Amino acid sequence: NELDMGIDALQSKYAAGELTPAQVMEDIRQRAEQYKEYNIWIHLLSQAEQSQWLSELAHKSPDTHPLWGIPFVIKDNIDLAGIPTTTACEEFAYVSEASSQVVQQLIDAGAIPVGKANLDQFATGLNGTRSPYGACHNAFDFDYISGGSSSGSAVSVALGLASFSLGTDTAGSGRIPACFNNLVGVKPSIGLLSATGLVPACRSLDCITIFAYNTDDANLVLSMAEGFDIRDGYSRANPFANQARQYGLRTGELKVGVIPAHQLKFFGDESYQKAYEATLEKLQAEGFQFQEIDFVPFDETAKLLYEGPWVSERYIATQPLIDENPEAIFPVVREIIAPGGKPPATALFSAQYRINDLKQICLAQMAQVDCLLTPTAGRHFTVAEMLAEPIKRNSELGYYTNFMNLLDLASIAVPTMMTEANRPFGITLVGSTFSDRMLMSIANRIQQALPLKKGALDVMATPTNKTPVASTKTMDVMVCG
Amino acid sequence: NELDMGIDALQSKYAAGELTPAQVMEDIRQRAEQYKEYNIWIHLLSQAEQSQWLSELAHKSPDTHPLWGIPFVIKDNIDLAGIPTTTACEEFAYVSEASSQVVQQLIDAGAIPVGKANLDQFATGLNGTRSPYGACHNAFDFDYISGGSSSGSAVSVALGLASFSLGTDTAGSGRIPACFNNLVGVKPSIGLLSATGLVPACRSLDCITIFAYNTDDANLVLSMAEGFDIRDGYSRANPFANQARQYGLRTGELKVGVIPAHQLKFFGDESYQKAYEATLEKLQAEGFQFQEIDFVPFDETAKLLYEGPWVSERYIATQPLIDENPEAIFPVVREIIAPGGKPPATALFSAQYRINDLKQICLAQMAQVDCLLTPTAGRHFTVAEMLAEPIKRNSELGYYTNFMNLLDLASIAVPTMMTEANRPFGITLVGSTFSDRMLMSIANRIQQALPLKKGALDVMATPTNKTPVASTKTMDVMVCG
Repeated sequence: NELDMGIDALQSKYAAGELTPAQVMEDIRQRAEQYKEYNIWIHLLSQAEQSQWLSELAHKSPDTHPLWGIPFVIKDNIDLAGIPTTTACEEFAYVSEASSQVVQQLIDAGAIPVGKANLDQFATGLNGTRSPYGACHNAFDFDYISGGSSSGSAVSVALGLASFSLGTDTAGSGRIPACFNNLVGVKPSIGLLSATGLVPACRSLDCITIFAYNTDDANLVLSMAEGFDIRDGYSRANPFANQARQYGLRTGELKVGVIPAHQLKFFGDESYQKAYEATLEKLQAEGFQFQEIDFVPFDETAKLLYEGPWVSERYIATQPLIDENPEAIFPVVREIIAPGGKPPATALFSAQYRINDLKQICLAQMAQVDCLLTPTAGRHFTVAEMLAEPIKRNSELGYYTNFMNLLDLASIAVPTMMTEANRPFGITLVGSTFSDRMLMSIANRIQQALPLKKGALDVMATPTNKTPVASTKTMDVMVCG
Repeated sequence: NELDMGIDALQSKYAAGELTPAQVMEDIRQRAEQYKEYNIWIHLLSQAEQSQWLSELAHKSPDTHPLWGIPFVIKDNIDLAGIPTTTACEEFAYVSEASSQVVQQLIDAGAIPVGKANLDQFATGLNGTRSPYGACHNAFDFDYISGGSSSGSAVSVALGLASFSLGTDTAGSGRIPACFNNLVGVKPSIGLLSATGLVPACRSLDCITIFAYNTDDANLVLSMAEGFDIRDGYSRANPFANQARQYGLRTGELKVGVIPAHQLKFFGDESYQKAYEATLEKLQAEGFQFQEIDFVPFDETAKLLYEGPWVSERYIATQPLIDENPEAIFPVVREIIAPGGKPPATALFSAQYRINDLKQICLAQMAQVDCLLTPTAGRHFTVAEMLAEPIKRNSELGYYTNFMNLLDLASIAVPTMMTEANRPFGITLVGSTFSDRMLMSIANRIQQALPLKKGALDVMATPTNKTPVASTKTMDVMVCG
């Protein structure tokens, strides 16, 4: 199967007249039939539902619309005009007249929505099994979890049913499914992508994320999706040093923070432990230098996400449903969210103080390295393992991810290895707020150094951008004139 | 009375051998006797308590210690090693072994503490009457309020009992007393000055502030007091554009945002209304251009401070006292803080969302002007008026101040006029986070254009720094080389 759904590949075929966007969309719908039991979709768009955007392409030039005719999938907690937003809860569903800000920008750039993807209900989970639309299955091994909550978004791209997709990430939902499905997962700095038209999970922490085959595609999509939005209270202007043109290939010496062996956790998954160790060895051979950082303050932060008062944000997001008709909520999700009405504001302030203190300690460590590198997940569970212990296993999935948004960090999940059982493994690069392009440039180097295929397709994912990017550690410069 | 307690004036006399710091301190203690009924002090330091710092001056050169021998007053919610910190509540008092970070930096720079100043208890008030140590009286008119909560800090400097002082500001406590006592009041960006060793009022909003006679003195003190402190979760690194050397005299065109007439409130104080109008007229003649901004989103923000869940921070700050011995708290303060244990975390998250939305609207308006200019207070109350309606009058005092820290803004209160009754009036300049030096440079221009005396002393306060500073609106610059 030499299907290549990469953005460059499709654009070349469009330019050569070998393919039209309408044909690609029809082909996607046919191939989607084969994967019905993967539970990828909540709403796969019909030809009629797509026709408006396809016909608008006639009035857009590919030269000025960088995503001309590129199919993309939307996690079903993000609005697409005229199509229900369910966030995997039928009783919560509504139809928005307008698309979310990010979706609209992508459509304006020529991209074509394929469908609304399955997710852990209310984006509450990291595993992909918490949906009344069925557990979403892994693109590489049907018995294994897809990861979540952006489950359908990741699996659809891995299986070639779109070139990229939108997920969201509060606790790790944009990274865990990237790891398990051999994709790049960009978790941008909070506020880089507008949250207007996104159903909140924890509104103070949510990010829209991007799944793509490689960093070149991810940077292009990010550059079309990003932008300040005054309607979103968490939106922030992107500084110069983090703009799209700063993406390239990070060259030269690299000092990368890693977790000491005794603080690493693989929860019994030897294949992941081996893959992690092999990844570090290969990167060391590529010139990466490693420096141990203390993971304790990151871990304390992570625990506050579910054990602290942030669950009150999830409670707000599901009101009034959780007050009026709690039975409509998926049982394990309800169990997590229901206590969220209880904590007092004093507990939240105290937890916010603690987070700020922990952040100072974490950032001081991170200031000594170019970025932090962790396994994206410690273990890949089967669907059966997940369902047997849904809370405990989910918590294990979040060991390397839950701290990220509470500390206002940027991160990117990068595939680095296939395990002996041919399941994907990957690492996550972590940097300070608005280090997104620096992280993507390092991720580019990793993808060029450790070539892998595009998701579960049989073509190479290796990015081609070789524009050298040096260290972005800043210094004060005075300009006279 | 030609007493001049300005930093330059004292330093000149020290350099000329006309005066020693020990003489100044002795003189202060004698003069303090005259003002006993003003209730300025909670603890005026004895000669013995000061002796250590005075004797250390022998080993410090004035050339390398910019505050050599300069007397300063400390609001009694800020730690001074070995002296009780009461925050105006004897049952809460404790003795810290270490001075607060800011006090220590000032002492290290050669400054000498004079005493711990009276305040509205737990820094909860803007008026200066809420203290079991007695209502603090205005330096210009004994019948009038000093303003608060940094009451003693302001009055002591206005009466020449110190060259500068430290206050704090959560809702306006560093600005209102500056206005009523003819002083500059610097309310720095949150996190510019360390809060280590400060008793919190609302820990997420508190700032240590500086009272001084003019912007030259204020900038010098600020430069000695500021600095990142990893122990303070709210501490932030100061960007290059806001460093001490960026302070000067703001020249050229200035576009200043002002509140439309129908949104101004003077609460029946015609003298303040007249003074405000006269101030704008004079500034217009000096080249200030005014542009109206809509005050509604600022006012909505302001109301959330006391009507919303931020009172929960005050509750935390007074625990366990408020739980175990609430009768120990000053009645009106207890009445305000006691409900703070009640609001749920959901209410706090919702209020934080609203603040973020309001902030986007406010900042968009502020981006169109160099700074915002408001009256610092709408009315100056007598002590009797204040005590008659303590909650309502305090709320009126906060009309132009309460929004500031919730929106993470910088501000500086600047005296501009004496009223016909010879009471001070002043305005406040408001800018975005880390616009501190830009605001101080504009305040310098105002002080040079509208010369006034130092506090209640009989010498002119006019700053002398004339280093031109142009607009600091930034642009992206790429530096190659």
